[in-house]
Amino acid sequence: MLPGGLRVVTEHVAGARSASVGLWVEVGSRDEPALGAGTHGAAHYLEHLLFKGTRRRSARAIAEEIDAVGGDLNAFTGKEHTCFYAHVLDRDMPLAVDVLGDVVLDAVMAGADVELERDVVLSEIAGRDEDPEDLLADDFDALLFGAHPLGLPVIGTEESVTGMTRDRLADFHARHYVPARSVLAVAGNVAHAEVLDAVAEVYGSRLGGSGEPWHRAAGDTPGTPADRLSVRDEDTEQAHLMLGVPSLRRADERWPALQVLSTVLGGGMSSRLFQQVREQRGLAYSVYSSTTGYTDAGALAVYVGCAPERLGAAAAVVRDEIADLAAHGITDAELVRARGQLRGELVLGLEDTSSRMTRLGRRELDHGGLDRATDLASTLERIDAVGASDVASLASSLLTAPRSAAVVGPYGDVDELPDEVREMVQ
Amino acid sequence: MLPGGLRVVTEHVAGARSASVGLWVEVGSRDEPALGAGTHGAAHYLEHLLFKGTRRRSARAIAEEIDAVGGDLNAFTGKEHTCFYAHVLDRDMPLAVDVLGDVVLDAVMAGADVELERDVVLSEIAGRDEDPEDLLADDFDALLFGAHPLGLPVIGTEESVTGMTRDRLADFHARHYVPARSVLAVAGNVAHAEVLDAVAEVYGSRLGGSGEPWHRAAGDTPGTPADRLSVRDEDTEQAHLMLGVPSLRRADERWPALQVLSTVLGGGMSSRLFQQVREQRGLAYSVYSSTTGYTDAGALAVYVGCAPERLGAAAAVVRDEIADLAAHGITDAELVRARGQLRGELVLGLEDTSSRMTRLGRRELDHGGLDRATDLASTLERIDAVGASDVASLASSLLTAPRSAAVVGPYGDVDELPDEVREMVQ
Repeated sequence: MLPGGLRVVTEHVAGARSASVGLWVEVGSRDEPALGAGTHGAAHYLEHLLFKGTRRRSARAIAEEIDAVGGDLNAFTGKEHTCFYAHVLDRDMPLAVDVLGDVVLDAVMAGADVELERDVVLSEIAGRDEDPEDLLADDFDALLFGAHPLGLPVIGTEESVTGMTRDRLADFHARHYVPARSVLAVAGNVAHAEVLDAVAEVYGSRLGGSGEPWHRAAGDTPGTPADRLSVRDEDTEQAHLMLGVPSLRRADERWPALQVLSTVLGGGMSSRLFQQVREQRGLAYSVYSSTTGYTDAGALAVYVGCAPERLGAAAAVVRDEIADLAAHGITDAELVRARGQLRGELVLGLEDTSSRMTRLGRRELDHGGLDRATDLASTLERIDAVGASDVASLASSLLTAPRSAAVVGPYGDVDELPDEVREMVQ
Repeated sequence: MLPGGLRVVTEHVAGARSASVGLWVEVGSRDEPALGAGTHGAAHYLEHLLFKGTRRRSARAIAEEIDAVGGDLNAFTGKEHTCFYAHVLDRDMPLAVDVLGDVVLDAVMAGADVELERDVVLSEIAGRDEDPEDLLADDFDALLFGAHPLGLPVIGTEESVTGMTRDRLADFHARHYVPARSVLAVAGNVAHAEVLDAVAEVYGSRLGGSGEPWHRAAGDTPGTPADRLSVRDEDTEQAHLMLGVPSLRRADERWPALQVLSTVLGGGMSSRLFQQVREQRGLAYSVYSSTTGYTDAGALAVYVGCAPERLGAAAAVVRDEIADLAAHGITDAELVRARGQLRGELVLGLEDTSSRMTRLGRRELDHGGLDRATDLASTLERIDAVGASDVASLASSLLTAPRSAAVVGPYGDVDELPDEVREMVQ
């Protein structure tokens, strides 16, 4: 930990020729409502705006410096985190640390650029509106989390982005984009001391004070949603269904059991849903389950994309498989396979420096330090410790809770949906 | 090279814990017209069907064996290549070699599975029809390549897939999915001898004969297209434009110069199009250029996605930048930056075993062996050897050729397009 509360975490990756550098800020769309409705979409808007120039670099200079070394510079904004990152050759790590610190802490946020980026963000919203699966995910979160800040789309709305002012953005930036809420995560062919040197050189004068690392406190648990079913009438050739239940917050000790449950339900080609919906019956091209975890809430969801005339039949299969899992849990063979799948995916998913940097940064933000038992070996141990009875007990509590379902497709209103879909949320 | 003409290429990747195994077959949608119109979409259809079961394994057994080790098993079909691949932990390489060989060479292709997968492929086509950028790419190729087989969409059409028969699929399979047209590419923590052992054990009895490796001959160069402009009227919130010209075939010695040209035009954040269209004017969220190379043809294209009311202005900027490049070439600063960018992207893009496997397999298929000067070091040398005059000469010939443009968006016909778009193809 450095002055100002900035944390620096490094992982040396043998054999790599690159470094992935991420400057994570513990801020996201859920922090927006506290500053008023006009702030909705500010975190994502800032993700754009900060790249438009700093006191030392124009937007073009930023782009040219990174492009000249073949690097990749980008950012993503979530509900609880924002990450500004670069992937560069190992020797260019100091440049990446420099540019990222400059962008996140020292951006100019010129009024003219606020206007330019407004159009770009509105164009991105228009693009989202053309993607049924993106719309579906936003609609589903709105249902599941209701009025809770987690229910709002990260990207904001056309209205909130149109009304955004520079003052609001600058205020939001000043409050949240501070060293005490930030983690610099570096993975690659670099040593921790080299990273600290680069940080000292670049951030030195900007890291005054004695800030302590800030950690997000769990807020109110989302209340009971008012509606359980939504339809967005779109003239799509496919019907898109997302069905789910509240599940566990990220730190819940049953999280590995939830991963096993989701894997057996719809986590791969041998999962129940893939086999029953696609392989045995050919009802859909795409069907899977997924989990999401936040500080104080989570979701377990099933996605189906299929021809509208098959939506009822596909939903009936999903319903039956969920009921079977809730009543009978999983078999020993499924348990062994799911644990093997999760172990393999975890190891195979950490081969490049970007995925290691992501794991490193999120681990520090979510679990507050490496001393918590979250290294790879102990994660693998926790997966291996999951028993069939843990999964059965979780399935019987989660999968019998009231469900929510969002649909995007050619349906004027909920009454036009197949009976099987409406019955699932009753 | 092994009996039957199968080629095996291996790259040991230090530090990796995994192996990526790809069984590449030199077959794609361009091979379909030779067997009649009813064969259109056969290569992609087979990509689905072959996973449905072999003489030794059911579809479920395939899925379970790969899932149990956390592996990833999938395939993709292109116009000239099809690749069946698996990403597994290094110790599971023999399993991956076994399953892939089984799937590609020994699939049962049961009639019932042909019917089941017909619905799945039709569902995938419906999904493509919801993605404006996918539609745009198909429309653009149809314009640029006209009646040439490269102009047909890989996925087939609703009509061709609906009419596909098991006999046609089996015939297509028997002709093309043979060892002499195949390359097994493996990258990861494995030795070449281990791979050969696995191949001998699995494919031994199936690799009889003395087949010589087959290489695709250059066919007819696509003729002059009948139309240069197409519009697909879709009620989208964004207008999508793809504009381009025929460029170089993949083996052309000017290929590195083409990469520099495309990089300067629209290859990154510092490119002319990104700076002028997005950064300076905020006209679009997404704008970039791309190149495609085949045995006997290629394309250089620019994509713009923007609000319909900005399409004319964006097209005018693209037109001006193209004209300037054609007339004046690139600056020395752009040359240095583009070479650095291409070098960095190349090295950074080869960090995981999957990308190395892909490079290895394509290199063998496209350039017929490792002795051709196509290893990483010589590729980097060829990039460094590109001069500003090479790029200027290429720009003045390619960028002054007649252009083709496809548009997807809210336009009833070509007359409703902004003047700037129509003028670009005149």
